[in-house]
Amino acid sequence: MNFSLSKSIEILERTPDVLIVMLQNVSADWTANNEGAETWSVFDVVGHLIHGEKTDWITRTEIVLSDKANKTFEPFDRFAQFEESKGKSLNELLAEFKSIRQTNIEYLKLKELSEQDMEQTGFHQKFGEVSLSQLLSTWTVHDLNHIAQISRIMAKQYKSAVGPWIEYLRILQS
Amino acid sequence: MNFSLSKSIEILERTPDVLIVMLQNVSADWTANNEGAETWSVFDVVGHLIHGEKTDWITRTEIVLSDKANKTFEPFDRFAQFEESKGKSLNELLAEFKSIRQTNIEYLKLKELSEQDMEQTGFHQKFGEVSLSQLLSTWTVHDLNHIAQISRIMAKQYKSAVGPWIEYLRILQS
Repeated sequence: MNFSLSKSIEILERTPDVLIVMLQNVSADWTANNEGAETWSVFDVVGHLIHGEKTDWITRTEIVLSDKANKTFEPFDRFAQFEESKGKSLNELLAEFKSIRQTNIEYLKLKELSEQDMEQTGFHQKFGEVSLSQLLSTWTVHDLNHIAQISRIMAKQYKSAVGPWIEYLRILQS
Repeated sequence: MNFSLSKSIEILERTPDVLIVMLQNVSADWTANNEGAETWSVFDVVGHLIHGEKTDWITRTEIVLSDKANKTFEPFDRFAQFEESKGKSLNELLAEFKSIRQTNIEYLKLKELSEQDMEQTGFHQKFGEVSLSQLLSTWTVHDLNHIAQISRIMAKQYKSAVGPWIEYLRILQS
């Protein structure tokens, strides 16, 4: 499947509601625990998604489309959410994510990006030149990656409860 | 986390709506393709979930709680959906899954199962004696497993579109 802006937006605009249906008012047993040392809880993941909306996807899109000579992206902070989410509830984070994602999708639609725009590039400190279509594809897959991760974190809370069926449940082995 | 019927139901009753928000009216590019030979599309997975509602979870719960001398479970048919989903749209399958899951959750709630009931067992042809709490935990994790799988199948449709970012996207490597 080739990149398509409209098909990417189909996914991007649904993710906040997917997470709200999955997580709003769910017991903290499912969302406050992680997968073990150095891993994230569901609460941490939602904070990470918010930080991406604030500093990654749209910020980098603006750099790609700008007239700047230097189009190098700032590195993304994978740990910012530990500070930024402090004192908030998961329900608050879900509402914040929905709001900022809506703003970002609106921005993207208003840009009326052409196929030529999609070939414009920015400079990633590790990967070198990357195109706008690659950035927006990555945003889309990043959502799906974290929906899968959230499902896995929740599933692992029942790792021992399933007894011998663990053998058939691939999600508990990863 | 120990098994809890109410916390299991929290997940089980949300899954149909999670899938409806994720998948209803989404382009077939995301849902009709699979991950390669011998793998399932999103459409196939939703059909598999319906077949589980019809023949697995509640059927086995009834066997465990029955007075029968022989409490051996029937093997589950992992390929039934290829026949049963024929001629249906994904939207139809999503509605069917929602309806049958609601019926099954209602059944489960009306049973007013005790902690003793949860220790009752049935006989699994591969695993031997398994308890009702293990069966219901597995039903719950099975939902989360397939939400993660659906996310992964969709993500893989953009495997080449993301360019070098594939390195950071664990979901594309599994």
